[in-house]
Amino acid sequence: MTAPRSDRSQALVAPVRLSVDCMGGDHGPSITLPACRAFLSKHPDAELVLVGLPEALAPAKDWARVTLVNASEVVSMDDPVEVALRKKKDSSMRVAINQVKATAEQPAFAHACVSAGNTGALMAVARYLLKTVEGIDRPAIASVMPNQLDGYTTVLDLGANVDCTAEHLLQFAVMGSALVSAVDGKENPTVGLLNIGEEVIKGSEVIKKAGELLRTANSRGLINFYGNVEGNDIFKGTSDIVVCDGFVGNVALKTAEGLATMFANFIKQEFTRNIATKMVALVAMPVLNHFKKRVDHRRYNGAALLGLRGLVFKSHGSADAFSFEQALNRAYDAARHRLLDRVHDRIAATLDSLPAQAAQGSEA
Amino acid sequence: MTAPRSDRSQALVAPVRLSVDCMGGDHGPSITLPACRAFLSKHPDAELVLVGLPEALAPAKDWARVTLVNASEVVSMDDPVEVALRKKKDSSMRVAINQVKATAEQPAFAHACVSAGNTGALMAVARYLLKTVEGIDRPAIASVMPNQLDGYTTVLDLGANVDCTAEHLLQFAVMGSALVSAVDGKENPTVGLLNIGEEVIKGSEVIKKAGELLRTANSRGLINFYGNVEGNDIFKGTSDIVVCDGFVGNVALKTAEGLATMFANFIKQEFTRNIATKMVALVAMPVLNHFKKRVDHRRYNGAALLGLRGLVFKSHGSADAFSFEQALNRAYDAARHRLLDRVHDRIAATLDSLPAQAAQGSEA
Repeated sequence: MTAPRSDRSQALVAPVRLSVDCMGGDHGPSITLPACRAFLSKHPDAELVLVGLPEALAPAKDWARVTLVNASEVVSMDDPVEVALRKKKDSSMRVAINQVKATAEQPAFAHACVSAGNTGALMAVARYLLKTVEGIDRPAIASVMPNQLDGYTTVLDLGANVDCTAEHLLQFAVMGSALVSAVDGKENPTVGLLNIGEEVIKGSEVIKKAGELLRTANSRGLINFYGNVEGNDIFKGTSDIVVCDGFVGNVALKTAEGLATMFANFIKQEFTRNIATKMVALVAMPVLNHFKKRVDHRRYNGAALLGLRGLVFKSHGSADAFSFEQALNRAYDAARHRLLDRVHDRIAATLDSLPAQAAQGSEA
Repeated sequence: MTAPRSDRSQALVAPVRLSVDCMGGDHGPSITLPACRAFLSKHPDAELVLVGLPEALAPAKDWARVTLVNASEVVSMDDPVEVALRKKKDSSMRVAINQVKATAEQPAFAHACVSAGNTGALMAVARYLLKTVEGIDRPAIASVMPNQLDGYTTVLDLGANVDCTAEHLLQFAVMGSALVSAVDGKENPTVGLLNIGEEVIKGSEVIKKAGELLRTANSRGLINFYGNVEGNDIFKGTSDIVVCDGFVGNVALKTAEGLATMFANFIKQEFTRNIATKMVALVAMPVLNHFKKRVDHRRYNGAALLGLRGLVFKSHGSADAFSFEQALNRAYDAARHRLLDRVHDRIAATLDSLPAQAAQGSEA
């Protein structure tokens, strides 16, 4: 039914076709369209399916390698999940996701979908339309944070699942490994389990059990388990991937964002304190800009919704054109390197190798 | 049996006597003794009980307002809890904690204890010797993080309890309020519940139930509940206190430490990249130093172990003399403003006002 693992994972997809929810996010088409145009100019083998209200898409009507698909509704940033799911059935978000849905009759039209729409709605609609991969109880949100090695650390889950079992954490580890192997070309990335100490006896019962499952999966060659890591290891780059439940992951992400914002404000305040410090700022500007570029969160935009039967990437709602383009890049890389097949194959191998109970999870 | 609440909370303790585990931490007496000396010179009404190996305490034998107490053992930074608890019964840590233990026969000799020893051992020994306050199931670790308002946010629990019930979170809120009222003089500090969104429907079942308990406690005037907060609110200063379970709190703390370290390293790297950037660094030094001072974590050293029948403060193990002195200052402020009585009174009021089940908690 499916090609052997080695064949599929080595082949590249070309041309890559992405569907884009052009109406999503705080700014809608005013940032998504310029980002799409910049993306197309840098990826001669890419095609885009632009989804939105007809008048919003008008500027793109003569672009090459573009298909315009109309939608009559828009999911707003504060629409409840129920509205997105049950009321707005012709929303740009939903129509864009539908482009990556494969049926028994025909393959998906696009290889991955990108939206800056609200996370809850996007996850709910994507899950409803696409369903989860066999062996996955719950999809997870994976994103990257910069680290001291001048690379980045992939963290999941970042908020899709507030209560996780040990089995869910194992599934996140397997899916995260597929993501990093696809996007970064590391075939055997290391996985750390987020905990409050390095020792195996640390943490809650769920975390301790997850540690056991991850060690077993490691011994069977399914993942490359590093062991327990702590919050600071995300930025040290101790492991390529950090696995945690969605509550903890979301708190870690928001805490980091909050601290980064405070630091940026403090630096700005110090350099604009008076005429003397402003002159110092002029001199220091090139150095400060170089620093700013290194920690610019816009470079890391584009979270993957993993575990669905279709690739969906989520951009920050407040993304600017540069930032939205990075989300398009991440979706492109993932689609081009067959992330969907990789997740499928890795999860299937895990199901084959680990006891059914462990791999399928329970709703404890 | 006890004085009315208003009388006690207004009275100040003087002189304040602190017991100090001089052997704890990575550096022991080489940093604790200079810190104690500096502290004494700035607090003419304070007395210290210095606990340690006799030879280590020798330099302090002629100091004024000091009592030397010998101990024959030292709990090392990597001693397991069991060793600290059952083997080293004459450790400086244990003897120092014993100074704040009151018995039926006599009051405690010291008002608060400070140690830079390992957290697990300190919590276990303190809990064993002092016992918890009536109505408290589990002690919590509370510390402060700087915020954008140029103040700081008190966060608890930071790692003592990995699995918490809603009732535990309520207890943390009540104890945190007592701490902030004692140390910062805010009689009615705001409490935020750490969550992954502001809406009351967000979070796990435990968090949602904690939200209900906190709203009830607020309506009865027991605490000043702000509502849900997110990780970034810690640094915004949205609420005076942020309450969370120890797993989440520890991850947030370590994540913040990791990001701060990365930022500091990046700034250093940028300013030492070449001869030109080094010259820029010379010019920018005063501004950078001012920034550094504002975010200097050493200023925020000194975590309170709350919920015990005695005040114990924990310094970072790696603290230098300046940093250890801050921990002494925090313990002094807490003792002087009768933190122990405040916790006792607030918890008693909560027990009186809320249903027993809610206030006493369960080991779910």
